[in-house]
Amino acid sequence: MVVAVSDPYTLAVDAMGGDGAPDIIVAGLDLAAERHPSARYLLVGDEAKLGPLLNHYKRAAAVCTVRHASEIISGDLKPTAALRVRGSSMRVAIDAVAGEEAYGVVSAGNTGALLALAKIVIKTLPGIDRPAMAGIGPSARGDVVMLDLGANVSCTTRNLVEFAVMGDVFARTVLGLTAPTIGLLNVGSEELKGDDRLRLAAETLRASHIGAQFHGFVEGHDIAAGTTDVVVTDGFTGNVALKTGEGALKLMAGMLRQVFSASIGAKIAYVLARPGLERLREWLDPRRYNGAVLLGLKGVVVKSHGGTDALGFAHAIDVAMDMVVHRFNERISEGLARMAPVRAEPVLQGQQP
Amino acid sequence: MVVAVSDPYTLAVDAMGGDGAPDIIVAGLDLAAERHPSARYLLVGDEAKLGPLLNHYKRAAAVCTVRHASEIISGDLKPTAALRVRGSSMRVAIDAVAGEEAYGVVSAGNTGALLALAKIVIKTLPGIDRPAMAGIGPSARGDVVMLDLGANVSCTTRNLVEFAVMGDVFARTVLGLTAPTIGLLNVGSEELKGDDRLRLAAETLRASHIGAQFHGFVEGHDIAAGTTDVVVTDGFTGNVALKTGEGALKLMAGMLRQVFSASIGAKIAYVLARPGLERLREWLDPRRYNGAVLLGLKGVVVKSHGGTDALGFAHAIDVAMDMVVHRFNERISEGLARMAPVRAEPVLQGQQP
Repeated sequence: MVVAVSDPYTLAVDAMGGDGAPDIIVAGLDLAAERHPSARYLLVGDEAKLGPLLNHYKRAAAVCTVRHASEIISGDLKPTAALRVRGSSMRVAIDAVAGEEAYGVVSAGNTGALLALAKIVIKTLPGIDRPAMAGIGPSARGDVVMLDLGANVSCTTRNLVEFAVMGDVFARTVLGLTAPTIGLLNVGSEELKGDDRLRLAAETLRASHIGAQFHGFVEGHDIAAGTTDVVVTDGFTGNVALKTGEGALKLMAGMLRQVFSASIGAKIAYVLARPGLERLREWLDPRRYNGAVLLGLKGVVVKSHGGTDALGFAHAIDVAMDMVVHRFNERISEGLARMAPVRAEPVLQGQQP
Repeated sequence: MVVAVSDPYTLAVDAMGGDGAPDIIVAGLDLAAERHPSARYLLVGDEAKLGPLLNHYKRAAAVCTVRHASEIISGDLKPTAALRVRGSSMRVAIDAVAGEEAYGVVSAGNTGALLALAKIVIKTLPGIDRPAMAGIGPSARGDVVMLDLGANVSCTTRNLVEFAVMGDVFARTVLGLTAPTIGLLNVGSEELKGDDRLRLAAETLRASHIGAQFHGFVEGHDIAAGTTDVVVTDGFTGNVALKTGEGALKLMAGMLRQVFSASIGAKIAYVLARPGLERLREWLDPRRYNGAVLLGLKGVVVKSHGGTDALGFAHAIDVAMDMVVHRFNERISEGLARMAPVRAEPVLQGQQP
């Protein structure tokens, strides 16, 4: 069955991606169906498995249409190989976006494959050189958007400026901020403050329509401090920073578990402090931040963590829905149009690729 | 007074660098004097201030010689400007290393200035293209050495390979490991696994005398997990990773303080869990890890944190002393010599700058 293009809230869902697929995916869709009752879903995967599952998840069954796909792109398949698998659930879901049957796609599958397929099949928005991967994380002063998290190992000045425009719109759309502050990630020492690429990106942003929101350079510690709402960087640095921060939090959490199991007194302490510790755990819960987003494509593309549970997958659907409902891509195009005069200036244009 | 070159354990100490100078520096030297009774120190700074201070720190007074320097390089002075200040305490201390009066220098002053002065005055070791800044941090599996932390914003394959050689010797010398494992920091996705520069560095290391210790690529989360004893990266990424990790730990520590002051029950919990929490705090104490080290120079150069206390400064002296006593630089030269045949191979040589 074909989903009508006129339906404003249709998302394609890759039912076969991630560790717990398809069970976790359908259970997540069931939760999402409650939150977004008017939305519709194109659930792509093995019909023989999805049919019986949907009998158990009535809310999901009520809002979705199953489209059969016989193949699954495994987690370790290289992106180049994934491009050659025609009938995969991921590919069929992405085709639905390219064919304007759905406004976006949510997948918990292979990240590299999703990125490669989305770039080639859905294609980038006019005016965007390269899509970026963005994510949301916790900080001392509220949630922080960071991009690029790994879609582009190296970036030009133009890329960084476009990431800032997209990060601005993303923070407005998904975090609901009215004038998010934006920082460009750099190193600390004055003498070494980045290269020409970074300095020129800062100059361009300062002169642009988001100049008042542009905070200038920020350093690694500013991410968790929440100095700015948006942190812009290249995909290599962003990927390392994301994983380093997660690693540090995990180290501390592991050490705390040791502390609270070290003695009878410590175990009693855990019971007494439990409400606060549980709130802290929930606040840092990766599921709250599930859904890295590919920005800059002609459609919404959300990547859920492969090891997520139903709650996390539902959250990834929330993010996609926020972007669709708040016309994310139209606002990107508006932002790019307002950026155009600044980028046309000779001093800056010289450095555009 | 001139310190004899034949004395094997003389360090120059910049008495005027850092927030608490000269008081904290002299107090730190007093602690160090107890730990390294046979060592001698050339204490460089304002004689009028240092004389009265040394009357209060008898152990320090017994092992040091004061050399007067009238100028101080402030924390915000640009490195290029710092190079022009002739009679600064930092410069006079560095001159003592270049003049072979001391084996190394310890300063809590301006990092950029120390780096610039050390490179120009002390100079790099033969065979080393560029010095790197290394530091030690905590992980789930013991201490981890990371370099470069910001001395070089961009690095070549050759630089990364030399950093690995220096990181290996540093981990042997200062952490006392016999065969430290070495990782090269990269991003996760297979398709995007770095650039030619990183792949060639990995190839070179695999073929070298430290090939058996080379673990291959590691990701951001591997730093705190302690996957390898040494993590090699360029100065931009290393600086961001270091500060991002520190920021994440600080965020968590701040949140824990809130948890333990939220209620009477939580305050009682803190008292009960205190021994373990104190151990955790001590374990993560930045003073334990105080002393970023400039590797690859014709002398030992240790940078203490500017905001350190006496204990932290004494620890920075410990690191310098470890490097001097264990002939750090001779071992670097031995490592480079063993690396030479690998680097001479045509396939690898093509990429050397």
